[in-house]
Amino acid sequence: MSQGRFITFEGGEGAGKSTQMDLLAGLLRQRGLRVLTTREPGGAVGAEQIRRLLVEGEPGRWDPMTEVLLHFAARRDHVARTVWPALAEGQWVLCDRFADSTMAYQGYGHGLPSHAIEQLYDMTLGLFVPDLTLILDLPVEEGLRRAAGRGGAEDRYERMGMAFHERLRHGFTEIARHHPQRCVLVQATASVEDVHARIRSVVEERLPMQA
Amino acid sequence: MSQGRFITFEGGEGAGKSTQMDLLAGLLRQRGLRVLTTREPGGAVGAEQIRRLLVEGEPGRWDPMTEVLLHFAARRDHVARTVWPALAEGQWVLCDRFADSTMAYQGYGHGLPSHAIEQLYDMTLGLFVPDLTLILDLPVEEGLRRAAGRGGAEDRYERMGMAFHERLRHGFTEIARHHPQRCVLVQATASVEDVHARIRSVVEERLPMQA
Repeated sequence: MSQGRFITFEGGEGAGKSTQMDLLAGLLRQRGLRVLTTREPGGAVGAEQIRRLLVEGEPGRWDPMTEVLLHFAARRDHVARTVWPALAEGQWVLCDRFADSTMAYQGYGHGLPSHAIEQLYDMTLGLFVPDLTLILDLPVEEGLRRAAGRGGAEDRYERMGMAFHERLRHGFTEIARHHPQRCVLVQATASVEDVHARIRSVVEERLPMQA
Repeated sequence: MSQGRFITFEGGEGAGKSTQMDLLAGLLRQRGLRVLTTREPGGAVGAEQIRRLLVEGEPGRWDPMTEVLLHFAARRDHVARTVWPALAEGQWVLCDRFADSTMAYQGYGHGLPSHAIEQLYDMTLGLFVPDLTLILDLPVEEGLRRAAGRGGAEDRYERMGMAFHERLRHGFTEIARHHPQRCVLVQATASVEDVHARIRSVVEERLPMQA
């Protein structure tokens, strides 16, 4: 049985994370790998219930500390009940958002101290980290324009204002800079096909796909 | 304006916490104090939404770490949006369950390390602690018998089994022993009136009610 891998997709609103995740999943399946695609917040029965508390409603619905605790509660449920069991079966798990989003949104975006977020991470997941994190980078206005086209009730974060989203984008680039072994910053302004090609080459280089 | 105080009621299922809280609230109001009664999990709009995830459904719905994160998310929302503003206005705040329940249920009951729970407390609430905690103690069978009479959907914790509830009771007595400055263990087997009289004398001794 081939070894399972955990790949996370990160970036601001409208950066194309779920599209690129699905394209990579298709490629990996063509190579004969078993692939699970999932998302945060959510990805397990309880975590999806917590998701609704986080992505719907007014921007000021939670203070940043409450919000970060809810994200880690959902994350613990998701990882313990979906991600770890799938990896133990040898699946490749692709995840739309993970802990770097918490650091970007609640840390860089809302100003919560990074050490508190890191402490929660250690407490919740211990030494478990993604094998590879693809951070899709896009100018804020372009991302929000794309995201607005989606519609739906899950727009709480989209409505947080331009300055917030600029801090987010800065946060993600800082995270990529601080974790070069794990993270790759991918320019997401190119066409869907070109971004996919770039992601494919990164994955082939970093995580050889022995089927 | 008189100084606000924060009094918490703790103990296992069916120990009479909410009854005794209401009786104390009535007494304090008679003395001319402004009193807010509240509860955990819950006590604020968001925290009540989180409460439903915690008190309804199957006992195994969450793993202990997810559960403790949800409790602290609800607690942060409750304290930041209900308790602190009321205390700042000089109100006496009486609360049905607080952080000692998390230590008893998820720590002593489910075996989560106490240092993780303490770390979450510090992160979420800093140095804020109750002025007085009344821990109502009752044999487990008696408490569960009383609680079963209430009916309703909020029975997730009641269904966790006798051994769990014995660990809870032991946990609460240990908490009282470790925090003698803050906690008083109150025998709850006596009549409602006698338990109230005991609580009244504890409050008068420890928190003089200057109106």
